[in-house]
Formats: sequence, structure tokens, C-alpha cells
Amino acid sequence: MNETEIPDIVIRRLPLYARELGLLAGEGREFISSQELGQRLGVTPAQIRKDLSYFGRFGKRGRGYEVVGLRERLRSILGLNGRVKEMVLVGVGQLGRAVLGYGGFRRGGFEVVRVFDSDPKQIGSMIDNHRVDDVASLPKYLERTRVSMGIVAVPAEAAPSVIDLLVAGGVRAILSYAPIATSVPRGVHLRRIDPVMELESMAYYLEEPFDGYVEDHQSDMTSR
Amino acid sequence: MNETEIPDIVIRRLPLYARELGLLAGEGREFISSQELGQRLGVTPAQIRKDLSYFGRFGKRGRGYEVVGLRERLRSILGLNGRVKEMVLVGVGQLGRAVLGYGGFRRGGFEVVRVFDSDPKQIGSMIDNHRVDDVASLPKYLERTRVSMGIVAVPAEAAPSVIDLLVAGGVRAILSYAPIATSVPRGVHLRRIDPVMELESMAYYLEEPFDGYVEDHQSDMTSR
Repeated sequence: MNETEIPDIVIRRLPLYARELGLLAGEGREFISSQELGQRLGVTPAQIRKDLSYFGRFGKRGRGYEVVGLRERLRSILGLNGRVKEMVLVGVGQLGRAVLGYGGFRRGGFEVVRVFDSDPKQIGSMIDNHRVDDVASLPKYLERTRVSMGIVAVPAEAAPSVIDLLVAGGVRAILSYAPIATSVPRGVHLRRIDPVMELESMAYYLEEPFDGYVEDHQSDMTSR
Repeated sequence: MNETEIPDIVIRRLPLYARELGLLAGEGREFISSQELGQRLGVTPAQIRKDLSYFGRFGKRGRGYEVVGLRERLRSILGLNGRVKEMVLVGVGQLGRAVLGYGGFRRGGFEVVRVFDSDPKQIGSMIDNHRVDDVASLPKYLERTRVSMGIVAVPAEAAPSVIDLLVAGGVRAILSYAPIATSVPRGVHLRRIDPVMELESMAYYLEEPFDGYVEDHQSDMTSR
């Protein structure tokens, strides 16, 4: 069970399944069929069954998936059942501050443990109980702590060098808010958060003639 | 040239190509090969050539793509060469305020023209020169203006009903910050911004043994 065997697109759907199962568990549901799960998520039942088949046999004939058990299993596969995942944050402009203030990371089991910036006016200041350190001290910090996740919230022009620093320091999972594409070595994973690019790609569809809705459902998942 | 012919995954890469060509134009470059463009973006040259082939013949033998011309063509295909795209924003909590304050939308040609919330304490207040309207007035507003893009920045539990309101009002492109999956009718496009889910899917790879980097390069694009 490694990266070369399981498509990344499958890995990317697991958190969505796990989250929906969590909601179902909260509703007191014990079992759910791939049909109903698919309907809730906008993916086909066949897709769900195929995705899960990479990891074993789930589901009981006639009853479907056991909600709590499957969720736990998926979170375990993702490595999310252990302790909090520590992250460094680089960049404390408006965006970086929003990242620090966002409770969703903490609730999801991810915590910013150290904050860096290159602006002399920011370095040494306190934001949400984090002291802002000089980005020049990032390599030594990573060498000492081996934190393996990082969030990049710096301007586009600064992002490549910051990403290089993170990679050199052993960070293997990077979430970047910078509106640029960057290559990273194999073994390092980079996901970009780029709302403008999402809007740009949707603008294409607004150009088309629109003849009203049809019955079928789709969601953003099916196209990823 | 319509939605059923061209894969969404291809459409989603066009903004990235256009943006990189814009950077190249800023550097004064006149031509670029698919090899070099691919290297800068972390996609294969073959992928770029195949993606572009959906839209016509580009590039000159031995010289590559004409930077400014191809960028303009891609932006035109995406419908981005016209006037500013108007959007409604629903939700003015911390996240909605960050959206309103983010200059990248405006720079990208997208503008929030109206702001809605359901909180009586917010309704009527001014945020960044926008008066916050009652979400109950959203349907009438959409009927009158036919704005076709929307941003959802409400809590997860409120998101489905807000998305339903937008869809019913004719909004066909929705950017959602709510951490939930929702089905939308065919003909409506929904993209989610979900940083925690991105982190969750990357956590999977941190569980693997790591034998050091290899020479090949990859980027988040290749796996979308």
C-alpha cells in the first residue's frame, strides 16, 4: 500500500468520505449503502466501492458500510488517528493571520506550532499567542524539530524560495496560498489553495448557452 | 466546443497556463516551448500540447508558443477578456470578511457586488463599503440582477440551504468555503476551498517510509 500503487485522486477522496461518515455518525446512523453515500457526496456508488477496494473489503451485503467503523478505518489509513499534526506557518500578512485564526485546522487535528516572516516589523511580534520568528531561522528550526507539514502564506514572488527552504528542511506536505505553480521533488506533496484560479476555470462554463437544469447530479468531486 | 466535449480537468489547467504566460510576458519573453512551460509548471510537455489541442493549433515549429498571443487566447476561451465578473458573497464572518478584503479577486477580474448574511447583528452594517443585506432578500436580488457567480462563506450547517438559494436564483458558478460536499444540478459548477481536507489527504503520505528525493519533479497539477 504505497504511493505508486494507489492513485492520488483516490487518496484525495478519502477525507471526504471520512467527513461524511462523521456527519452520519452524528446523526446516529449505523449503516449506509454506497448508493446513499454516493448521493450525498455527488459521486457514483461504483466510484466509492472502487476507491475503498484499494484498502480492503468493507460493507456487509444488504446492510452497507458500518458508519463508525469505516470512518475510523479511513482516518487510520490517512494517519489521522494519532496525535496532532504539527505545522509551521510562513507569512503573517492578512492571509497568514486568517490561517492562524481559523479554528478548522485545530479541529481537524492540525496545529500551527511556529510562525515565520521576513518583515522586520513583524519579527518578534505576537499573533494569537505565537511569536513571529525570522524566516532566516526556519532551516535551523526544521533541522531541530523535524516538523513535516508547512503552510505558505507569502506573496507569489517570495513563495518559491520559501518552498525551497521548507523542502530542504524536510517538510514533505506543503499547503500553499501563493498564486503560483511550483515544482517540488517527488516525495514532497504540495497543494495549492487558489480561489481565483477556481473562479477562472468556472468562468469558462458561464460562456456556454444554458438550457436549464437536467435531473442528473454532479459535484466538484467527480471532476477531480 | 462545449462541456461535454472537453474534460473539466483540462479546463481547470487553462488558468494556470494563462497565469504562467502572464508572468513570462512580464519577463519580456516572446516565445516558450512546451518543454520549458511544462518544467515551470510541473506538468509534462505532452500534457500541455494535448490540453491545448482541444482549442486549436498553437505554437510554431522550432519557436514554441507565442507568449502574449496564447495567453490572450486562453483568457478569451475562459471568458476572461470581457468585463468584470460580478459575484454575490453570502456570509460575513471572519472568512467572509477575509474574502471581501482579498485583493486577488479584483485583480483577477472578479468583483463582489453584493453581500448577504442571516445574522440580524450583521444585517445593515457596512463592511469594506458593502452594506450587508438579509439573506432572505437574496432570491429577489438574483432575479433582478442575474448575477451568475457566488461565494459561500457560511458555516457548514447553513451551506446547503444557501447553495440551494443560489442555484434557484440562477447562479451557475459557486465557490464554497464550507467544509461539506453538496450535490448541485448539472449545469451548475461548484468548487470547494477546503484547506483541512487538503491537509488530511497529504497526511496519508507522511505515514510512508521516505527514502529521500529522486530527480523527477511533480506538482499538484499532475494529480488533479
